[in-house]
Amino acid sequence: MIHSNITVSDDGHLCFAGRDTVQLAEKYGTPLMLIDEDRVRERASTYVAAMREYFGEGSAPLYASKALSCVAMYKIVGSEGMSVDVVSSGELYTALKAGFPAERIYFHGNNKTADDVRYGLDSRIGYFVADNLDEVERISVMAGERGMTQPILLRLTPGIDPHTNEKISTGKVDSKFGTAIETGQAEQLIARVLTMPGIKLCGFHCHVGSQVFDQYPFCDAADIMIDFMAHIEQSLGYRAEILNLGGGFGVRYVDSDPYIDIRDTIRLIAEHINNRCAEHGMPVPRILMEPGRSIVADSGMTVYTVGSVKTIAGYKSYVAIDGGMTDNPRYTLYGSKYTVYNASRADAPADFKCTVAGRCCESGDLIAEGVSVARPQSGDKLAVAVTGAYNYSMASNYNRVPRPPIVALRGGADRVIVRRETYADMVACDIDE
Amino acid sequence: MIHSNITVSDDGHLCFAGRDTVQLAEKYGTPLMLIDEDRVRERASTYVAAMREYFGEGSAPLYASKALSCVAMYKIVGSEGMSVDVVSSGELYTALKAGFPAERIYFHGNNKTADDVRYGLDSRIGYFVADNLDEVERISVMAGERGMTQPILLRLTPGIDPHTNEKISTGKVDSKFGTAIETGQAEQLIARVLTMPGIKLCGFHCHVGSQVFDQYPFCDAADIMIDFMAHIEQSLGYRAEILNLGGGFGVRYVDSDPYIDIRDTIRLIAEHINNRCAEHGMPVPRILMEPGRSIVADSGMTVYTVGSVKTIAGYKSYVAIDGGMTDNPRYTLYGSKYTVYNASRADAPADFKCTVAGRCCESGDLIAEGVSVARPQSGDKLAVAVTGAYNYSMASNYNRVPRPPIVALRGGADRVIVRRETYADMVACDIDE
Repeated sequence: MIHSNITVSDDGHLCFAGRDTVQLAEKYGTPLMLIDEDRVRERASTYVAAMREYFGEGSAPLYASKALSCVAMYKIVGSEGMSVDVVSSGELYTALKAGFPAERIYFHGNNKTADDVRYGLDSRIGYFVADNLDEVERISVMAGERGMTQPILLRLTPGIDPHTNEKISTGKVDSKFGTAIETGQAEQLIARVLTMPGIKLCGFHCHVGSQVFDQYPFCDAADIMIDFMAHIEQSLGYRAEILNLGGGFGVRYVDSDPYIDIRDTIRLIAEHINNRCAEHGMPVPRILMEPGRSIVADSGMTVYTVGSVKTIAGYKSYVAIDGGMTDNPRYTLYGSKYTVYNASRADAPADFKCTVAGRCCESGDLIAEGVSVARPQSGDKLAVAVTGAYNYSMASNYNRVPRPPIVALRGGADRVIVRRETYADMVACDIDE
Repeated sequence: MIHSNITVSDDGHLCFAGRDTVQLAEKYGTPLMLIDEDRVRERASTYVAAMREYFGEGSAPLYASKALSCVAMYKIVGSEGMSVDVVSSGELYTALKAGFPAERIYFHGNNKTADDVRYGLDSRIGYFVADNLDEVERISVMAGERGMTQPILLRLTPGIDPHTNEKISTGKVDSKFGTAIETGQAEQLIARVLTMPGIKLCGFHCHVGSQVFDQYPFCDAADIMIDFMAHIEQSLGYRAEILNLGGGFGVRYVDSDPYIDIRDTIRLIAEHINNRCAEHGMPVPRILMEPGRSIVADSGMTVYTVGSVKTIAGYKSYVAIDGGMTDNPRYTLYGSKYTVYNASRADAPADFKCTVAGRCCESGDLIAEGVSVARPQSGDKLAVAVTGAYNYSMASNYNRVPRPPIVALRGGADRVIVRRETYADMVACDIDE
């Protein structure tokens, strides 16, 4: 099994977080998204404890809530001591609805509108992570109008390419995000920002990309950022208090992906940063990180019901499920690989090679190609593992398919944290006249 | 301008369907989706009239409503005499809510669940387009339980590859859709279906793919289907009454895409089919087609507000807009090209080369790369043309970004047909406890 929270029951059913997924599918219907809440909490507390221990007080992980944004998730990560990063007013609204402390909210995004800035200021959020000059000016003016001094970080691009998927690689100079150090534009921006009223520049943010499985890209980015911070202290007399390294660690989706030890990798990054700061004779800044995927991805599983099994003579077999790109667009978007199980026959040999096809009227609506599962029959439950991150959050109503519910599993109990969408929900915005 | 419904006003604003898009953006906010209802109606009536004239009575276009499914669209195409194809219970629910006549509804999809079949039967829809044996059996049993005889078509794969995008090419033997003629599986299926109670086999469906710009793929598919129908009449003594050719015609997204004359191409396909049937001494079946994209795509336009304009020295320029992959995921999904205008400066030379970036925290959230527009400033309105199909229908709440409204333009008047989603809408399914 790809993760330790996946097991097989005595009667051959796949279990997740110790619970029989076939029984859960019968109870809640399919498609069904499950969240192993115990594992979410364990991951959150691991980041919180390791960052406090190795980076010191004031350092903290922010839950990158775009991975899975719903009221319950903000409550869960908040109670484990994480701060959060939101990327839109919609995420901010959801966090506030969950009662998340505003001062622990960081507002991200490459294009905050005037409405976003207004909402963040009026909600008294902790920090804006400002992407560019236009945004800083907007925050400065609007904070000034309110007689406030708003803490901000500036998003900079260190020029790192972590060799992950092009679409989720964000640290390169050629990026829609942030302002480039390499071109000199970052320094010009900082010089200007330091003269602006209504804001307090507290430090810098960078992000090297997703699916990073070792410390090196973080250390490389930290080197560039710390060297730059030392340079800025010399050239502009400004000492940054916070360095936000962005992202968290990679997640194991399939057997060929590595495991990563969160705690140990944080220790290695901390050692590296401490040394680099010492070389510059600089105090170590408060370090922030933004894990999202590694908090929630392998805490998730999606359970489907098999409709038809179609073997095309001389070609291949298609297993049709009652969900697909509407609840998990990642294969269609990125070709992301997933681990698939026949949850109804998890003790049988996984020797049936097939393509798992979604129910949308679109050829590209596939979840996996060339995977092997125990030979399924119509009515079997099919489970796709590691679907906690960027599945529900990216879900659509394409083909007017309702979004599935999310059921959290904790200490042997199950509770609905997001209910299944209804047809009536889907036409709520349609004007009927 | 890419289409005749796009013009420029005296004060340099882009107009769509004769209306000033900048004024509409100010009235309704951005992002804003516009639908040129007059053009939708003209396209729908062109298909209806041409198919009746050249294929004869009983032939009809079905609006492939997955292109844009909302209550108003079913009303519009229904009033122009189209039938509709729905691909899910959600689309069926929306069509029925619009008062669409059930007998003109065709229920498609590669994996209809028992709930789908029940809903279709109980709603007395005209036809199921059954994908495979599992589905036919389900329909047969459930119709039998109700004492009904349900008309069905069978979806077959003719083995045509129209060389369109792999993800939207559907006629190949290796497809999740339908049953292959080439492998002999289709004939076996038909032999079996003809013995089953509760259903009436009325004919066959095939689909050659999207973005087809001439008659040839339709003629090729029709040849295969007509030859097969003649063969089946000989081998099984069954004469099919309906041939559904799937799809409609391609749409011009950018200058390098051709125009297609809908009426004339239907005439050419009809001539071809008439000849082929005559060769077999067969009566010409009722012909159905399923245009979706060509009904609504170039009747759509999306208007955004520019946030920042970022030029990275030595690299390129990014123009950030207040929407993106959440309202139009087609560039991210398929690399689909779009035509972009600076709606606020539509009379200025389009000489600023840029990448148009969405507001999502994702590098891949781009709408167009390397397009040229009049140099934008923060606050300008940017218009993306030909967004009527597969934009709103594929929209998501990724990053918890609300879906935009759709405003229909008809005869100089504007009316909201889909209202803007609110933050409260987005948390409607979140359980807050």
